[in-house]
Amino acid sequence: MGDLNSLLDQEPVVAAAGVDLLADAIETQAGRVARTDWRPSAPGAEHALAILAADGRARPANRDAVERLLAVRPQLVDVVPAHSIVPDLSEGTLLHAGPPIEWADCSGPLRGALTGAMLYEGLAGNLEEAAALAPSILLSPCHHHGAVGPMAGVVSASMPVVVVEDAAGSGVAYATLNEGLGKVLRYGAYGPEVIERLEWMERVLGPTLGDAIRRHGPVDLGTIISQALQMGDDGHNRNRAATSLFLRQVGADLIASESVPVTDRSDVFRFIDSNDHFMLNLIMASGKLAVDAAAGVDGASLVTTMARNGTEFGVRLSGTGDTWFTAPAPIVDGLYLGSYTAADANPDIGDSAITETVGLGGFAMAAAPAIVGFVGGTADGAIRRTLEMYEITLAEHPSYRIPILEDRGTPTGIDATRVVRTGVVPQINTGVAGREPGVGMVGAGLVQAPMECFVEAVRSLAARPSAPTAAEDFRPWPDDDAAPYRDEIGGST
Amino acid sequence: MGDLNSLLDQEPVVAAAGVDLLADAIETQAGRVARTDWRPSAPGAEHALAILAADGRARPANRDAVERLLAVRPQLVDVVPAHSIVPDLSEGTLLHAGPPIEWADCSGPLRGALTGAMLYEGLAGNLEEAAALAPSILLSPCHHHGAVGPMAGVVSASMPVVVVEDAAGSGVAYATLNEGLGKVLRYGAYGPEVIERLEWMERVLGPTLGDAIRRHGPVDLGTIISQALQMGDDGHNRNRAATSLFLRQVGADLIASESVPVTDRSDVFRFIDSNDHFMLNLIMASGKLAVDAAAGVDGASLVTTMARNGTEFGVRLSGTGDTWFTAPAPIVDGLYLGSYTAADANPDIGDSAITETVGLGGFAMAAAPAIVGFVGGTADGAIRRTLEMYEITLAEHPSYRIPILEDRGTPTGIDATRVVRTGVVPQINTGVAGREPGVGMVGAGLVQAPMECFVEAVRSLAARPSAPTAAEDFRPWPDDDAAPYRDEIGGST
Repeated sequence: MGDLNSLLDQEPVVAAAGVDLLADAIETQAGRVARTDWRPSAPGAEHALAILAADGRARPANRDAVERLLAVRPQLVDVVPAHSIVPDLSEGTLLHAGPPIEWADCSGPLRGALTGAMLYEGLAGNLEEAAALAPSILLSPCHHHGAVGPMAGVVSASMPVVVVEDAAGSGVAYATLNEGLGKVLRYGAYGPEVIERLEWMERVLGPTLGDAIRRHGPVDLGTIISQALQMGDDGHNRNRAATSLFLRQVGADLIASESVPVTDRSDVFRFIDSNDHFMLNLIMASGKLAVDAAAGVDGASLVTTMARNGTEFGVRLSGTGDTWFTAPAPIVDGLYLGSYTAADANPDIGDSAITETVGLGGFAMAAAPAIVGFVGGTADGAIRRTLEMYEITLAEHPSYRIPILEDRGTPTGIDATRVVRTGVVPQINTGVAGREPGVGMVGAGLVQAPMECFVEAVRSLAARPSAPTAAEDFRPWPDDDAAPYRDEIGGST
Repeated sequence: MGDLNSLLDQEPVVAAAGVDLLADAIETQAGRVARTDWRPSAPGAEHALAILAADGRARPANRDAVERLLAVRPQLVDVVPAHSIVPDLSEGTLLHAGPPIEWADCSGPLRGALTGAMLYEGLAGNLEEAAALAPSILLSPCHHHGAVGPMAGVVSASMPVVVVEDAAGSGVAYATLNEGLGKVLRYGAYGPEVIERLEWMERVLGPTLGDAIRRHGPVDLGTIISQALQMGDDGHNRNRAATSLFLRQVGADLIASESVPVTDRSDVFRFIDSNDHFMLNLIMASGKLAVDAAAGVDGASLVTTMARNGTEFGVRLSGTGDTWFTAPAPIVDGLYLGSYTAADANPDIGDSAITETVGLGGFAMAAAPAIVGFVGGTADGAIRRTLEMYEITLAEHPSYRIPILEDRGTPTGIDATRVVRTGVVPQINTGVAGREPGVGMVGAGLVQAPMECFVEAVRSLAARPSAPTAAEDFRPWPDDDAAPYRDEIGGST
């Protein structure tokens, strides 16, 4: 009787593994649910996961790749015209964000930005000429030229670019200067004020900043990023601290650059001060340096690129060469400006997911609780998103640390096999462009990378010829407590 | 039997109210403890608490006082020599931090700083002359002159001071410019490099910054402080974000101030950039403006001053006029630099606890988890300290908000009766000066305001003549859910 009573005193508890639908329904009825983290692996990759799990190269290859990624020391050394330094950027070529694309497939904001670049470069004299020229213009991804660009990411020959070098290696990466908010090229606007601003950036901003940087000497961007994470930035959608620290670096040299007219120098200081996202492009170039250093490691499932052209979302792995694995770009879930809604939004666009690829942005949201005022959600949710990203990453960043997590390093180095196996996809903080050309920014929010890209990437990696493994050398799990796939082998073979 | 078994299955649980000693001991033995927040009120104030609880003036008076405190809008309008603006500051007078003190009672760092000021002002030509002059020099608290100073807080006639005005009222407050870290006057150092830096500050820093500020127009300090809390500052021991935002405000005007030599302007930018605490003094002056606005409300138990002279900790209340309630200054619990230990530490010193008095510093630690690397402890502990301060405060600051607490306003406006009633004392983040004159900074940490000050202040408030309360007007708790002392009346009468 007593045992029965004590049983009757207990409410029923349901253990729900993976199936959120069931757990949600029970919770709705005030039942108690103990949720576990397990989810089935993504369909279509079971065989590939088994092959990779048995491949002795995977662990050392990923370790090599992520160590290369973490070893990079980005420093800003100059600001110069793109045509003078970006490889294979002829006058008629326009670079863009994301994987390769033809004009016919371009979304509204990318068409708008390409149109603006044609007008700015004088390739077309008006909108009619631009429309006629567009199908024949040579388009190429920024990522193929050592460059990255936010949103549409258009880079043309006359634009000034930052030159970011690796102080610990030989790499170099480029990015344009951030234009600020409002009607700007990267969000697909191409009106006269956009072109005039680009001309001022070419004539005044680039040369003035370049002069101050050369006077200053290399600016240590890694230290700025590390400090900014201690100051509430995520490095993607919140860059107020990094931009502040950058101005502290260059301010004294802007004062001292007396060969440049004083009004130009104070205008440049004010321009940077007016745009809390100024540092985004420099952080992106720093990330490009890191992922390029990590590329080309045979057998590594480390993700080296996540980028979107407004039509497709594309992923590249360290171990699969230059191949892009793409899927339709998703719509961003976020906060919309003014009267805009999700119906006005273009699908996800921009190379800025390079920040998530190197442990920033959505992966560092716990460092930036104030960002929820911009992208939506709660501070508690921001922490949970970062915690979830540890499940799919290979390392904790040694210098990008999160104070509220007791200085834990950010989750860094996405492992495509872990994404596929866990069903957890990378979380990206991003801006939202209007789908019509010329509209500009309509919001900001969070987007999930599409699983299909990672499934295809993992299948391709598994299909590549594997170096034969001598029986005595076959030790896929050299350290017991660091064997990520051990428990899953039985289920996936 | 079954009931007995289920009882035996349960581990014993102890409910420990207030008595941490007991709870700690049980937890040490792996017993389960459910702690409650209740603590007995501080001894010696029971009768005073009862009188104040029955005094109909307390609630409206505190509401009036805290609303005045929150209504202030601090803006920096100028930088000028102290003798030109600080009331009653003659050439021979030296202002200092904390409550009034005689030379004979001064601690090492305060003696060091006063010595340095005598040398800097030319009142004494060398250390012997300074020692002879010291007992006859006129000492006066900064707080009596509309001013505040960190650590020793010495202000002399020739030092440049910031002029902070209330954009929403008529108040004005002053503070010296922060000297940076290392061997500095405020930590009691008085060597030649200290005096030379003070002379450079008088000759270059003050006039150059003043010129830029006048060119810029009033700098909105309240907005800088609000933003800095979103960027990991606490406004007392971590001011990197606020200092960065301040440089963003004045940078363009420093570039444009062509009447000042270019090297002076770049030196000034570099000097501020080299000192992440530069904004501390401006935040302190902003706080002084707020507490002075809240002073003098009859019946209000709001704390308007917490300040230390290195020997005594002093408190003043809005409702008790200019009277200081003092107790021996405590030793700071924190992290020590190099080989220094607590044995090298002077007791707590400085007017900087003005920041805690207005909802910053130790009260805003949850906004600044990275500060634990400077003052010790954990990020989780920083959050708990802020949460505890809500128990003793009258309001949540409408513009100083904490992102990780889902943008909750900082606990602001210390109520001395709540301190005494709950036994919870204000938590202060602070620097630690060496106890020997000339040593300088030896560490940083946390210190608890001494309870005795608050007990004496509450007793004094209760002893003041009360306006007779008409029976029909006697409604001490107009809102049921906002009656802070209701539950305690029975126990304390």
